[in-house]
Amino acid sequence: MVRRGLYVGRFQPFHLGHLSVIEKILDEVDELVIVIGSAQYSHDVDNPFTAGERLVMVRGVLKEANVDVERVWIVPVPDVDLHMMWVAEVEGYTPKFTVVYTNEPLTRRLFTEAGYKVRAIPFYDRQVYSSTVIREKMTKGQGWKKLVPATVAAFIEQIDGTNRLKDLNKKDKR
Amino acid sequence: MVRRGLYVGRFQPFHLGHLSVIEKILDEVDELVIVIGSAQYSHDVDNPFTAGERLVMVRGVLKEANVDVERVWIVPVPDVDLHMMWVAEVEGYTPKFTVVYTNEPLTRRLFTEAGYKVRAIPFYDRQVYSSTVIREKMTKGQGWKKLVPATVAAFIEQIDGTNRLKDLNKKDKR
Amino acid sequence: MVRRGLYVGRFQPFHLGHLSVIEKILDEVDELVIVIGSAQYSHDVDNPFTAGERLVMVRGVLKEANVDVERVWIVPVPDVDLHMMWVAEVEGYTPKFTVVYTNEPLTRRLFTEAGYKVRAIPFYDRQVYSSTVIREKMTKGQGWKKLVPATVAAFIEQIDGTNRLKDLNKKDKR
Amino acid sequence: MVRRGLYVGRFQPFHLGHLSVIEKILDEVDELVIVIGSAQYSHDVDNPFTAGERLVMVRGVLKEANVDVERVWIVPVPDVDLHMMWVAEVEGYTPKFTVVYTNEPLTRRLFTEAGYKVRAIPFYDRQVYSSTVIREKMTKGQGWKKLVPATVAAFIEQIDGTNRLKDLNKKDKR
Amino acid sequence: MVRRGLYVGRFQPFHLGHLSVIEKILDEVDELVIVIGSAQYSHDVDNPFTAGERLVMVRGVLKEANVDVERVWIVPVPDVDLHMMWVAEVEGYTPKFTVVYTNEPLTRRLFTEAGYKVRAIPFYDRQVYSSTVIREKMTKGQGWKKLVPATVAAFIEQIDGTNRLKDLNKKDKR
Amino acid sequence: MVRRGLYVGRFQPFHLGHLSVIEKILDEVDELVIVIGSAQYSHDVDNPFTAGERLVMVRGVLKEANVDVERVWIVPVPDVDLHMMWVAEVEGYTPKFTVVYTNEPLTRRLFTEAGYKVRAIPFYDRQVYSSTVIREKMTKGQGWKKLVPATVAAFIEQIDGTNRLKDLNKKDKR
Repeated sequence: MVRRGLYVGRFQPFHLGHLSVIEKILDEVDELVIVIGSAQYSHDVDNPFTAGERLVMVRGVLKEANVDVERVWIVPVPDVDLHMMWVAEVEGYTPKFTVVYTNEPLTRRLFTEAGYKVRAIPFYDRQVYSSTVIREKMTKGQGWKKLVPATVAAFIEQIDGTNRLKDLNKKDKR
Repeated sequence: MVRRGLYVGRFQPFHLGHLSVIEKILDEVDELVIVIGSAQYSHDVDNPFTAGERLVMVRGVLKEANVDVERVWIVPVPDVDLHMMWVAEVEGYTPKFTVVYTNEPLTRRLFTEAGYKVRAIPFYDRQVYSSTVIREKMTKGQGWKKLVPATVAAFIEQIDGTNRLKDLNKKDKR
Repeated sequence: MVRRGLYVGRFQPFHLGHLSVIEKILDEVDELVIVIGSAQYSHDVDNPFTAGERLVMVRGVLKEANVDVERVWIVPVPDVDLHMMWVAEVEGYTPKFTVVYTNEPLTRRLFTEAGYKVRAIPFYDRQVYSSTVIREKMTKGQGWKKLVPATVAAFIEQIDGTNRLKDLNKKDKR
Repeated sequence: MVRRGLYVGRFQPFHLGHLSVIEKILDEVDELVIVIGSAQYSHDVDNPFTAGERLVMVRGVLKEANVDVERVWIVPVPDVDLHMMWVAEVEGYTPKFTVVYTNEPLTRRLFTEAGYKVRAIPFYDRQVYSSTVIREKMTKGQGWKKLVPATVAAFIEQIDGTNRLKDLNKKDKR
Repeated sequence: MVRRGLYVGRFQPFHLGHLSVIEKILDEVDELVIVIGSAQYSHDVDNPFTAGERLVMVRGVLKEANVDVERVWIVPVPDVDLHMMWVAEVEGYTPKFTVVYTNEPLTRRLFTEAGYKVRAIPFYDRQVYSSTVIREKMTKGQGWKKLVPATVAAFIEQIDGTNRLKDLNKKDKR
Repeated sequence: MVRRGLYVGRFQPFHLGHLSVIEKILDEVDELVIVIGSAQYSHDVDNPFTAGERLVMVRGVLKEANVDVERVWIVPVPDVDLHMMWVAEVEGYTPKFTVVYTNEPLTRRLFTEAGYKVRAIPFYDRQVYSSTVIREKMTKGQGWKKLVPATVAAFIEQIDGTNRLKDLNKKDKR
């Protein structure tokens, strides 16, 4: 039977740490389900990019990195308000998986309580590679491109993403 | 064809700056659609007044200021969680419009991306005329009535609005 | 004190019976709140028109019929799933009202239970003037224009409304 | 006729102050409806326990304290986004009640506006008995068990509640 | 450990078949969780009664039938749109249970897929005792009271439930 | 620039007609975005399969048919209640596309009104290849496997899909 792992991220934006995690998980499983979490959000300071834009980022990176796309599933999953139903929702949107990769305490707890095997995600330097840090640098006009794969940097430029984020940080809509 | 503008505000509460904006926009367009945004909220510290109460405020002011009501549409529109669907929702609730007046960065960006012509709203002193400032003054028992049209001050008094806001600020329900 | 009535309709589309009701109610009250119900729906077989389009219809008719717009409030209100909260929602979206005009049994019951005075709506021929009948005639290509005010007929033509409804009836999206 | 009171709390977790309030209210009314508010939330830092878990806590405490369960109704009620519909929702989920016990300003205002008699909840030391304080102590590993009834302490231990809360505080899922 | 069963019904209204089921299940388990399903609905033809009214019915019947209320939990649970998350929601609203009693195919399938032991509900004459049949008889003015416990018949009379249902059947609000 | 098409289906289940459409569209565009519509539904008679299961079907078929997966995007998109916001939602979940393939009248109308180029989907025998027909055959125990790709038939067997659908048709949960 296929060993299939699950990896959940918001990828706002996708960075080199994410890529490193994906490559290492693919050494341990046959297939990987990458969930683009909080799929319904975009155009806010913590979630500047749409699910569609993040899908383009992930696919572009996997191709650039020569990852075999047949081994990867990329699935946007919208959030639900209620943590107690989130695991069931992820199960409903994805192919069956048997192991969950996460360092995030709540995700670990929710999937553990639901009976899944949970493994820590492989090491990368979380101080350096951090979507939060990247969004801050984008907003302040500091260099951020070396923190993401080249294809992501190019795509964000193409959709004028840095200016979108700067605008959003001037003042949020509400 | 009718030149119709759009102006979105929460009007919590409506103040003299809003009136000034509306009067100036009406010099530039034939008709104006005033959207009462975040229509579903009320009774919280940032949104003390119901959509119905705000509707009363706006109508009262327009009458007091001798604005021709036939040139104005006032439409409450509830928020949606998802910024990416908000422009479509506004389009669904309002008569067709061709130009959007806003200084708000996200609103400008969303409508621009959707292909609308966006103009800056006419000048008024945003330090002085600010709903946030007015709510703070109301809460602290400081003078706020000269910042709003007389009809708004009278209406808020009539619905005991200042005490409602003070209560809400003692401690929010959740 | 202002005697203010409430009248709820979906106005899909607005027809001569609606106009007759509004004119008669205005003989009994000082002001009338016209709620455009089920405001969030459009583009389905029972709700072909958006709230914005219905707003245009109602305003146009009132002007055509020389109704004093200062005596009328037109407010789109989205449905809630739960009947038990609907009265509270209508109260939140509208100016205060004291009498409800309806022949609709559930609306009468809900507002009566909530303590409102409810009156039957004035007589008009419901067999002839019926939005359901009009939508059927539109779909079948039969004459429907004499059932609605001239301004409504013209507006529906302008937005290509008959063809929209015909399309929707070919097969619903879901 | 039965005099029935209403008491709303989130009970995250239930503590001795809550018990004291319930016992005192039961001296004044025939029956008490205890609403477990914000019922849909769990697994977040302010709402660590599910509605089901809180139900177990309240029932266990009432039994431990020899409260006559026939005089008490325990009803989980999910929040609605809109304060203006919350009273109607509580009415829909509960048996009829005539008096509301609360010190919370918004709850008092909402029920007062809706025509209910509202009484202050009986005295207890809110500095000491506070769910917020208890959650902080749980998170920091400080003693909290003497602030809650013994049955609550035992139940939280049984469901590993302290560790859940510690995990949630490490970093929230979103 | 406590053997706890789960039994889900809408109880629109509660009838003698329901009572028979509850009594028989209580012969097999220590405690029973009775879920009042579709809790959020009321005032429609298939769901005339609020969750609060149904709660009153169930409690009244259990008392009338001398069921030990300490062995029973009664929990209203609102529906979710998505079947795939419903089991998780029920788990979140109730105390832990280990066996589910149902004859309903979907409920059986959903809980079976989620790993629960599911048992058929004990026999009663479903042709005779049926909420659907009772609602039809109420609507048509036929005798229905002998199909429900005496306390339910009295309560429905007290809240004028038959007339509510008749009104709802004249014409549904939407 | 990449010519990218959009094709929306519910794929309950995916059948040979769908495959034929996809192959023909791929002759006309560089890339195709396949939207798995109504993604949030499952376990009901019209939507028996989860988004995740449908994703497995589509991917399996594309591989079996030697379609270049690099040219295809498969994106589950949940429905929104409001037709007027659906186009905006699809745009938010997908990579940018310029042409929409559909024979469905409402989809055609909505995307046309939003300014997209819409083309009819290539011919296949809709009487024979129809998800509705297939679900009926499944329910009645008639032969359906020759109407779907072999990999879909095998997958449905593996997840016991036929029995799920039969159960759902015995009686729907609500």
